[in-house]
Amino acid sequence: MSANDKTRNQPWSGRFAEPVTALVQRFTASVSFDRRLAAFDIEASVAHARMLHAVGIIGKTDLAAIEKGLAQIRSEIDAGTFPWSDAHEDVHLNIERRLIELVGEPGKRLHTARSRNDQVATDLRLFLRSAIDRTLALVQSLQRRLLDLADAHADTVMPGYTHLQVAQPVTFGHHLLAYFEMLARDAQRLTDCRGRVNRLPLGAAALAGTSFPIDRQQVAQALGFEGLCENSIDAVSDRDFAIEFCACAALAMTHLSRFCEELILWANPAFGFVEIADGFSTGSSIMPQKRNPDVAELIRGKTGRVNGHLVALLTLMKGQPLAYNRDNQEDKEPLFDVVDTLTACLAVLAEMLGGIKVNREAMAAAARQGHATATDLAEYLVRKGVAFREAHEAVAQAVRFAESRHCGLADLKLPELQRFSSAIAQDVHDALTLEGSLKSRSHPGGTAPARVKAAIARARKSLG
Amino acid sequence: MSANDKTRNQPWSGRFAEPVTALVQRFTASVSFDRRLAAFDIEASVAHARMLHAVGIIGKTDLAAIEKGLAQIRSEIDAGTFPWSDAHEDVHLNIERRLIELVGEPGKRLHTARSRNDQVATDLRLFLRSAIDRTLALVQSLQRRLLDLADAHADTVMPGYTHLQVAQPVTFGHHLLAYFEMLARDAQRLTDCRGRVNRLPLGAAALAGTSFPIDRQQVAQALGFEGLCENSIDAVSDRDFAIEFCACAALAMTHLSRFCEELILWANPAFGFVEIADGFSTGSSIMPQKRNPDVAELIRGKTGRVNGHLVALLTLMKGQPLAYNRDNQEDKEPLFDVVDTLTACLAVLAEMLGGIKVNREAMAAAARQGHATATDLAEYLVRKGVAFREAHEAVAQAVRFAESRHCGLADLKLPELQRFSSAIAQDVHDALTLEGSLKSRSHPGGTAPARVKAAIARARKSLG
Amino acid sequence: MSANDKTRNQPWSGRFAEPVTALVQRFTASVSFDRRLAAFDIEASVAHARMLHAVGIIGKTDLAAIEKGLAQIRSEIDAGTFPWSDAHEDVHLNIERRLIELVGEPGKRLHTARSRNDQVATDLRLFLRSAIDRTLALVQSLQRRLLDLADAHADTVMPGYTHLQVAQPVTFGHHLLAYFEMLARDAQRLTDCRGRVNRLPLGAAALAGTSFPIDRQQVAQALGFEGLCENSIDAVSDRDFAIEFCACAALAMTHLSRFCEELILWANPAFGFVEIADGFSTGSSIMPQKRNPDVAELIRGKTGRVNGHLVALLTLMKGQPLAYNRDNQEDKEPLFDVVDTLTACLAVLAEMLGGIKVNREAMAAAARQGHATATDLAEYLVRKGVAFREAHEAVAQAVRFAESRHCGLADLKLPELQRFSSAIAQDVHDALTLEGSLKSRSHPGGTAPARVKAAIARARKSLG
Amino acid sequence: MSANDKTRNQPWSGRFAEPVTALVQRFTASVSFDRRLAAFDIEASVAHARMLHAVGIIGKTDLAAIEKGLAQIRSEIDAGTFPWSDAHEDVHLNIERRLIELVGEPGKRLHTARSRNDQVATDLRLFLRSAIDRTLALVQSLQRRLLDLADAHADTVMPGYTHLQVAQPVTFGHHLLAYFEMLARDAQRLTDCRGRVNRLPLGAAALAGTSFPIDRQQVAQALGFEGLCENSIDAVSDRDFAIEFCACAALAMTHLSRFCEELILWANPAFGFVEIADGFSTGSSIMPQKRNPDVAELIRGKTGRVNGHLVALLTLMKGQPLAYNRDNQEDKEPLFDVVDTLTACLAVLAEMLGGIKVNREAMAAAARQGHATATDLAEYLVRKGVAFREAHEAVAQAVRFAESRHCGLADLKLPELQRFSSAIAQDVHDALTLEGSLKSRSHPGGTAPARVKAAIARARKSLG
Repeated sequence: MSANDKTRNQPWSGRFAEPVTALVQRFTASVSFDRRLAAFDIEASVAHARMLHAVGIIGKTDLAAIEKGLAQIRSEIDAGTFPWSDAHEDVHLNIERRLIELVGEPGKRLHTARSRNDQVATDLRLFLRSAIDRTLALVQSLQRRLLDLADAHADTVMPGYTHLQVAQPVTFGHHLLAYFEMLARDAQRLTDCRGRVNRLPLGAAALAGTSFPIDRQQVAQALGFEGLCENSIDAVSDRDFAIEFCACAALAMTHLSRFCEELILWANPAFGFVEIADGFSTGSSIMPQKRNPDVAELIRGKTGRVNGHLVALLTLMKGQPLAYNRDNQEDKEPLFDVVDTLTACLAVLAEMLGGIKVNREAMAAAARQGHATATDLAEYLVRKGVAFREAHEAVAQAVRFAESRHCGLADLKLPELQRFSSAIAQDVHDALTLEGSLKSRSHPGGTAPARVKAAIARARKSLG
Repeated sequence: MSANDKTRNQPWSGRFAEPVTALVQRFTASVSFDRRLAAFDIEASVAHARMLHAVGIIGKTDLAAIEKGLAQIRSEIDAGTFPWSDAHEDVHLNIERRLIELVGEPGKRLHTARSRNDQVATDLRLFLRSAIDRTLALVQSLQRRLLDLADAHADTVMPGYTHLQVAQPVTFGHHLLAYFEMLARDAQRLTDCRGRVNRLPLGAAALAGTSFPIDRQQVAQALGFEGLCENSIDAVSDRDFAIEFCACAALAMTHLSRFCEELILWANPAFGFVEIADGFSTGSSIMPQKRNPDVAELIRGKTGRVNGHLVALLTLMKGQPLAYNRDNQEDKEPLFDVVDTLTACLAVLAEMLGGIKVNREAMAAAARQGHATATDLAEYLVRKGVAFREAHEAVAQAVRFAESRHCGLADLKLPELQRFSSAIAQDVHDALTLEGSLKSRSHPGGTAPARVKAAIARARKSLG
Repeated sequence: MSANDKTRNQPWSGRFAEPVTALVQRFTASVSFDRRLAAFDIEASVAHARMLHAVGIIGKTDLAAIEKGLAQIRSEIDAGTFPWSDAHEDVHLNIERRLIELVGEPGKRLHTARSRNDQVATDLRLFLRSAIDRTLALVQSLQRRLLDLADAHADTVMPGYTHLQVAQPVTFGHHLLAYFEMLARDAQRLTDCRGRVNRLPLGAAALAGTSFPIDRQQVAQALGFEGLCENSIDAVSDRDFAIEFCACAALAMTHLSRFCEELILWANPAFGFVEIADGFSTGSSIMPQKRNPDVAELIRGKTGRVNGHLVALLTLMKGQPLAYNRDNQEDKEPLFDVVDTLTACLAVLAEMLGGIKVNREAMAAAARQGHATATDLAEYLVRKGVAFREAHEAVAQAVRFAESRHCGLADLKLPELQRFSSAIAQDVHDALTLEGSLKSRSHPGGTAPARVKAAIARARKSLG
Repeated sequence: MSANDKTRNQPWSGRFAEPVTALVQRFTASVSFDRRLAAFDIEASVAHARMLHAVGIIGKTDLAAIEKGLAQIRSEIDAGTFPWSDAHEDVHLNIERRLIELVGEPGKRLHTARSRNDQVATDLRLFLRSAIDRTLALVQSLQRRLLDLADAHADTVMPGYTHLQVAQPVTFGHHLLAYFEMLARDAQRLTDCRGRVNRLPLGAAALAGTSFPIDRQQVAQALGFEGLCENSIDAVSDRDFAIEFCACAALAMTHLSRFCEELILWANPAFGFVEIADGFSTGSSIMPQKRNPDVAELIRGKTGRVNGHLVALLTLMKGQPLAYNRDNQEDKEPLFDVVDTLTACLAVLAEMLGGIKVNREAMAAAARQGHATATDLAEYLVRKGVAFREAHEAVAQAVRFAESRHCGLADLKLPELQRFSSAIAQDVHDALTLEGSLKSRSHPGGTAPARVKAAIARARKSLG
């Protein structure tokens, strides 16, 4: 009977009078995206089967058959010949069905003492652990590129901006190290998150555990988990790990978006600080002269995507009663896309950094605009004994005067400067040079070239 | 020269010394998802070509060749034989490249007086207009299903809840009509949005318009647009239409999520109000007795996905300087997924409603719990001249008394009730029946069965 | 008895054995923020009382007492002497309690035939309707400022950017009109939203309607509502109107954020396109020379706030079973803050625009960078019979050549240009001037100064 | 001169020709909310002043005056007599201005070698560190309440749900421990976050560091920071710490929302599992019988608020160029509200748990519905040698049969059961009891009462 044929696809259909409709099958099937978990599903099944054998639930022959069958399935998947089908809902049932096809009876014993609820949580954690490891490696690569570039520009002067107005001179190397710090925090957060990902849900079965004498520690060890999920209901209900990863990713993307925003600004002809290599620029279908920093723009744009997925997952879990609900099938696509987006952006940005040409002249010229050393003058006055608030006020008046003359602060003559404070002397012009300003900021964290060099050395060491 | 071969793929590559790297090509290519716009791209190109001819920019033979070539491309796409390639970035360049391959020189004239910036905005609006029309039809179908079910249950009593505590009796039909109203607002909003979608950006070219003597009105008319985008810079920068649609969709999904939450509650055995058809339920891989309302859960879960995409698009556009930036390539995947999610959920929910079995007995039994007619007693007292606040207080005391006796308010004897107010007389018990309570709420918007019938009639008329 | 004293604060406390704890009272009280609804609450109560009298539920004397009491309460609130108290939970109970204090028995009759559920929905809609009207007026003011500025700069040339790279010359007036269009859509959306806000929930009572013979139409008319909420359950459950408004506001803020981003860029010395008036700039506590576009930055930053509140409300309503749940108390603070944020940003931006100084020279100089008329050259070639794709390629080569010479396209000599296409003749240099480029884009929506003037005239007319 | 009087309020106004307008002053002032940082601002200023003295930048008398002035300011703030004013923008300038007022010249020296940019970052980190400590204590209190309740119900049987359908019996204690685990992860995450919060930005000054010979380590030590922000530009630009905290809080609120959802369900009469104490319930203004779990609903609703603030902050930081921009003033209100919301919810939920009455009878009765031990029957069959997939199918058929008889699986007679599998024998009914089912799940993480007791003991130990 054909309806029966169809319902037989679902290993849970014995209880039902009617098959699910085609519309519903399509609507509920997840195999189109969760097949991505196949390798992890097989890995976990092998560990589970071995444990079942070790504690005496399945025999030696059963185990051998299961291992052989799963190995073949793995080959079929790698070769692209595996017969994926929506009719079998998800990656787990597709593989189990095929296993039974290949090895018969023993295949029917594999699902003993587990449920898809703990199985999918296990697969997802294995996937994410591996994704975190890849991400961490990419973060490090990008950090190394930043250090190389910072090293080459430890004393390249550029205008430091606040409010996108010229604030004080900094070195380009120092500026790049700010991004190194952000990425270092990203790496820390991902590492912390990894510790919470790396715990075994298997053994929770549907939600209550199982009546079989399972050995969860053995499975955890086999799969490289650091510990067990300590409560079976939590084990199948918890998606914190996915959300925490997405939150880490959203912060990392925020950092990349800031860097890309700056690259876009710097590539604008009014700034002209950097030129992005041809290979990372694209043109226009209508404007023949265009050379666009598309890669940087796309990375900036993809931040929204990651933030959106974080919101999707938080919204998904809000107010869900325990334990597993089908809503949670919606956890995978956002998570997968966050992993893909973040890793792609990290990789392409690192590559792009390799091909950036820095225009030192343009940077220096911009730093000479905007009275960048006004603060140095105020600090000069303080060193001469003026209270800071009064020094600040005096310099503000001097800036106003310079502006009325359409010149920079450093261009004012000594007597002109002295109008604003009698503490100003011959030595004032040293304080007003870009180089003098940079060099003077030599405490930990400061922009003095020597400090930047030291910071780079420390950073390289931290990467190992 | 092979580098040249490669760069020739991009119609903008003449200006560049080096080809884009393979990594960048993969990172920036959108053809894997924007090919979905192909039919709209061709439709818009035909209208554009005809206008170019009408105003004398291209000749008759050119137009004929372009039309023939585009018709063939359409067939190839429909047949699945079109040679899509990442090397040509996006749907527009894939089609243009193929057109030139097929018809030669005339194909090179098609992109006159337009840019991809206005082209993609046009395609996207055509896509969305069509998606809105499909969505509106699905909203109506679901509304009709609700009306049919409401009609059958115009006098089926159920407990109305506030705070998920029994509040007052309502009819199931009345309850369903609440969802009809929500969907009616969704339809209104989508219609309002459609009016803003349905305007022609083509003619804006890259951002400034074009020096060719184009006729935008002709193109608008040919494509069924209600008007022009009135400013060329806005025309290529604007993605309001996509965001507005996603906001409408998020509200619609919110409505569906509320309905599905209720279906899930009602299908729980403690309620037992409804039974979802086998075809819309699924089982468990481990628990043989399970019958899960997975479809309702998935719809509820997919709400997060749509909210997330809305956030993605809002984040995308925040703070973007005019005009077009490549960030905007990120507008498509969220929009497409919102369209697919909302239409699928509307369709499957309408189907599911068709197969719901309602358990009137369980509903009525639940309505008898929780002193659902306490408000009726208070209103009875007001009609006897007691001020409302005092009537409320008296009934609250009576409820406390009934609870101490472990019985319902309606089960109290007349003298018992009279302890709490001397205004209570023989006729009080009429006010305490579920039927009496329902019938009495007969103003516009009330739950009296006759009112519900009238509301259904009005609603049917509004659907036409 | 003091516990009793305390519980008597709540008009629902008759049923309870123990008073709410102080912690809970503080946690659940909303009067600290919903008192903002007081004027609307009183307005709605007066309309309700008049209707109660008109249909014979309360007598003439009762009505007079209620009206008098409410008038006095209004005065007390305006004078800041009203005794607000957390002990009475919310604005509604504070006012009702005071009314009973002031007028006795009649005050106890006011809450007949209504519930706080429909009362708060009514108040909130009245508040929002008024807020929309204020917002619309502010949108219009800002639009008028844009038109004035656009008028003054209808032919001021500036570089139009795509990808923040110089694309083509546009006029500053044309650029400003892009924002006019965005705001016009905002106004449309707000108007559409207003129609859905402006419906009366009162009469829905708790959720089922009431057994009193109320006249909802009379109340609707008295309060200026365009229609009734047609289903009592929907009437008390619906918060679409708040979410829709927040979605409109998020789009409007997105527009403002883009404008402010541009103002910040333009105020940077590398651009130097505009100078923001002193009154809208702030300084630095440490850097005496700073002059920061803080107002623009704050507006840009506040976009996140509005997006966040939209997410808060969508998350709030997701999956809520009908009808009213206390979760919904959380609807007010986000909504109020969105109203305050959007109106403040619109107002301050309009003011700021009034004091902007435009540097025409800087704009023109920037437009001369970056081969802004390359597209014009390509279009010139097309007019000479070259296919667009070939013209584009030829110009791209010419740009590359000009760059190798470190000059602009317009600086190349005729024979140099002719290397790239034999179609180039004496008249080519006309096509390469900024003025020629602008003037040639004279179709509807184009940037030709005459078109910009016409667009301004049309826009002024649309504002009335 | 009055304009001057006004501008003198801002310590940066010397450079400006015109004062800021009142509108702008109101729009940009943050003192209404950032005054909350006052205690931390003073603490940091004292540490800064002592360091300035230690390295010789200010004298002994200056330091003494500053310390005395700041102590007085602290008293004034505590006493509510401090003259806060919008005219001085923010908490920092209000305090500095008052200090100068109180102690004169020395007050003008305090701002030496720092900027508001590093000052506010320091204050905010001190605030957040303290908020995390309070949050951690509240998380622990709630965990202890959960353990107490779990202890009392280690063997109270309840239906475990998946898909809100009865799945398998669990104990109520085991169910509660799921929440203990979630909170344990929250505590871990907050602790990880605290480590990243607890680093000193001071010394970064505006963005580049300072030319004074400061000792950042001394300040860090004085303020209890674990380390320095290692890059001055990052130090003033970074708001990761605020976002990370909000992400932690969003997850914690998600957990609370799930628990509250369950409390609301359980308090519904159809479930009747728990009764929430009067002190945590509220009534209705119209329905005298109502007893609503408002506190649980509000907590659930407040989840949206926290998610929204997380989105606000992520949106705020996206694409911001370095270093400090005024956008960042928008970081405080969301952060403050997240802290207040999370701590209030944790506190009130812990209190509420103390007063919950559990209805064991209702829980047990619900567990007997829905064939909760069907999985046990399948596992019984596996132990008898049937392959799991076949056992599952056989039990599914048995369930269908029992449903046709309107009875539970355990009510079927032996011969009836044997129809579905010949492996079923006399001992089958032991497997079908709730107690047998519970007891059999005795591996780590399982629901067997003895395991639950052990888990509680372990948990208590982990709390110390």
